[in-house]
Amino acid sequence: MPRLDLTAPAVEVTRAICDIPSVSDDETPLADAIFAAISGFPHLDVHRDGDTIVARTSLGRAQRVVIAGHIDTVPINGNVPTRDIEIDGEAFVWGRGTVDMKAGVAVQLKLAAELTSPAVDLTWMWYDHEEVESERNGLGRLAANRPDLFAADFAILGEPSNGQVEGGCNGTLRAVVRTEGVRAHSARSWVGENAIHKAAPILSRLAEYRPREITVEGLVYREGLNAVRIHGGIAGNVIPDACEVEVNYRFAPSRDAAAAEQHVRDVFDGFDVTVTDLAPGARPGLDAPVARQFVAAVGAQPRPKYGWTDVARFSALGIPAVNYGPGDPHLAHHDQERVPISQIEDVERGLRAWLTSA
Amino acid sequence: MPRLDLTAPAVEVTRAICDIPSVSDDETPLADAIFAAISGFPHLDVHRDGDTIVARTSLGRAQRVVIAGHIDTVPINGNVPTRDIEIDGEAFVWGRGTVDMKAGVAVQLKLAAELTSPAVDLTWMWYDHEEVESERNGLGRLAANRPDLFAADFAILGEPSNGQVEGGCNGTLRAVVRTEGVRAHSARSWVGENAIHKAAPILSRLAEYRPREITVEGLVYREGLNAVRIHGGIAGNVIPDACEVEVNYRFAPSRDAAAAEQHVRDVFDGFDVTVTDLAPGARPGLDAPVARQFVAAVGAQPRPKYGWTDVARFSALGIPAVNYGPGDPHLAHHDQERVPISQIEDVERGLRAWLTSA
Repeated sequence: MPRLDLTAPAVEVTRAICDIPSVSDDETPLADAIFAAISGFPHLDVHRDGDTIVARTSLGRAQRVVIAGHIDTVPINGNVPTRDIEIDGEAFVWGRGTVDMKAGVAVQLKLAAELTSPAVDLTWMWYDHEEVESERNGLGRLAANRPDLFAADFAILGEPSNGQVEGGCNGTLRAVVRTEGVRAHSARSWVGENAIHKAAPILSRLAEYRPREITVEGLVYREGLNAVRIHGGIAGNVIPDACEVEVNYRFAPSRDAAAAEQHVRDVFDGFDVTVTDLAPGARPGLDAPVARQFVAAVGAQPRPKYGWTDVARFSALGIPAVNYGPGDPHLAHHDQERVPISQIEDVERGLRAWLTSA
Repeated sequence: MPRLDLTAPAVEVTRAICDIPSVSDDETPLADAIFAAISGFPHLDVHRDGDTIVARTSLGRAQRVVIAGHIDTVPINGNVPTRDIEIDGEAFVWGRGTVDMKAGVAVQLKLAAELTSPAVDLTWMWYDHEEVESERNGLGRLAANRPDLFAADFAILGEPSNGQVEGGCNGTLRAVVRTEGVRAHSARSWVGENAIHKAAPILSRLAEYRPREITVEGLVYREGLNAVRIHGGIAGNVIPDACEVEVNYRFAPSRDAAAAEQHVRDVFDGFDVTVTDLAPGARPGLDAPVARQFVAAVGAQPRPKYGWTDVARFSALGIPAVNYGPGDPHLAHHDQERVPISQIEDVERGLRAWLTSA
């Protein structure tokens, strides 16, 4: 088993944990290495649930903060092991997981080992299965198995946010909008009814849709309504009797699930709409005192998070939560995934400053 | 090997050959049975090319006519062996192939054996692989291997036409109309370009399209332009970068291939159009003297054929060709495929009348 040296600089820890492949379903070797590296510190109680590791301080502080990061990645595509590269004079660690989100996890691991007496009690969580179906998410499993571990006043998720604080997240809804027709041989098309032709207004409404920008607690959330898949047709000589357009609606955290669903039903009024997936967003939560302290201490300007992240799980438990991690989210899942070394250092500095001064 | 008795009534021959399964690629048992049954008649020279059987008279007549039928069927779906059924007092043979087109082949086999001295020289052709890709068609293979066998003044294809004479056929063109976009995460859709949304005008043009009706040699051909398949999208959280709409244009035999292609390009002006399949139609050819004689003798009212059939292969060789066979073409490939016994008898009577009187 590879040994992790958590006294090394965070960039070295980043390289080390990126070089242990941990595509979803294959997190065990990395979870083993983390468990071994983080065990044995007198200031931490360590728990393990599958490939999720939890490490807690119990210093009797007035407040407790969860700091979490997932340890799995999307599939490798020739981008492991990591390499050091330079672009326009900027030094990067390149490779799968550097952005999403092992650089963030590396900073967390290093600080978990180093900060024996933080200003708040800490619950560190490193979890599996974030990059797959929501119901397999390690954080969700842990919340079901050990809800007691989720007692906290604030949560920070190390998802890539360019070293800025990204508050809350948009919600996401998926729905299938369906048309029906009548099959016929395409040589006698007038005998049938073409379900693909009937989908024309669905695409027109999508093409004409103008997404809203909604301000929530001072942050401007940009929405989006998009077709993500379309499918219809049986054979090259058959008038199709069904066409399905799968749409994805990303909605500001000020709308709840019911309002989001109603909006999609309104847009596709007259069509058969089936909601297949619906996860509400998370309000930024930046008005909580501990959140304000955190933002001030790390010296960042809060911005909205557009993508849905696990902050919504904390938000649903009533815990304000933000994203704060190194790396450009646009490069997540990208084959040229790479994290600027300066951002790793910035986030490490920011977190340490807050945790030692609060 | 099952033995065919060609002296039995045509409806019995129909049952017998329908009960020998001959889904495309599996025609050999039926081809063997036909070859055995039709060999040994002094008035016929019999040739075999794979599972295609040809039987010719050589009586020195002034005219030669090809009478042809394919022996393969689409896949069986619980509808073999045949059954005798009655609907509203009408007697049917029910089962796979009864309509498309073994009843027609049965009539042909019976008359080939019976008519030792027809009024015109005859070239009977029973061929394989009509229900699959055009390049595997047994008639096409025979035309390449033995072009000499295609010398003829007129051709009759026994495709189902409700016992009426259906002249010529529409042409068929398939094309893929494509849009391109730029992939992005659907949480930040404004970074991408949605290729499915861009396909909205393709579907609108199809929905608004009004097909023409075109009179060719007195027959009215009805055209059609339809989406037969649509596909786009990568995943539930990705803005799609491509969308493809496959369209099928059925065009009157007065348009040639180039004109048909130009029409489709005009309709989808501004889009990327790739023609993937293009088979011109066949003019009715009913102005040829032998065709007029035939129509008069069988006592039928000529109608247009909408579906593309192998008559177009004869038409391309300059041989007027019509469809004439028992069975409702709307029931071809249908799981409740069934042929009225009266139509089998009518077509037998019509062909015999013409071939013994011309």
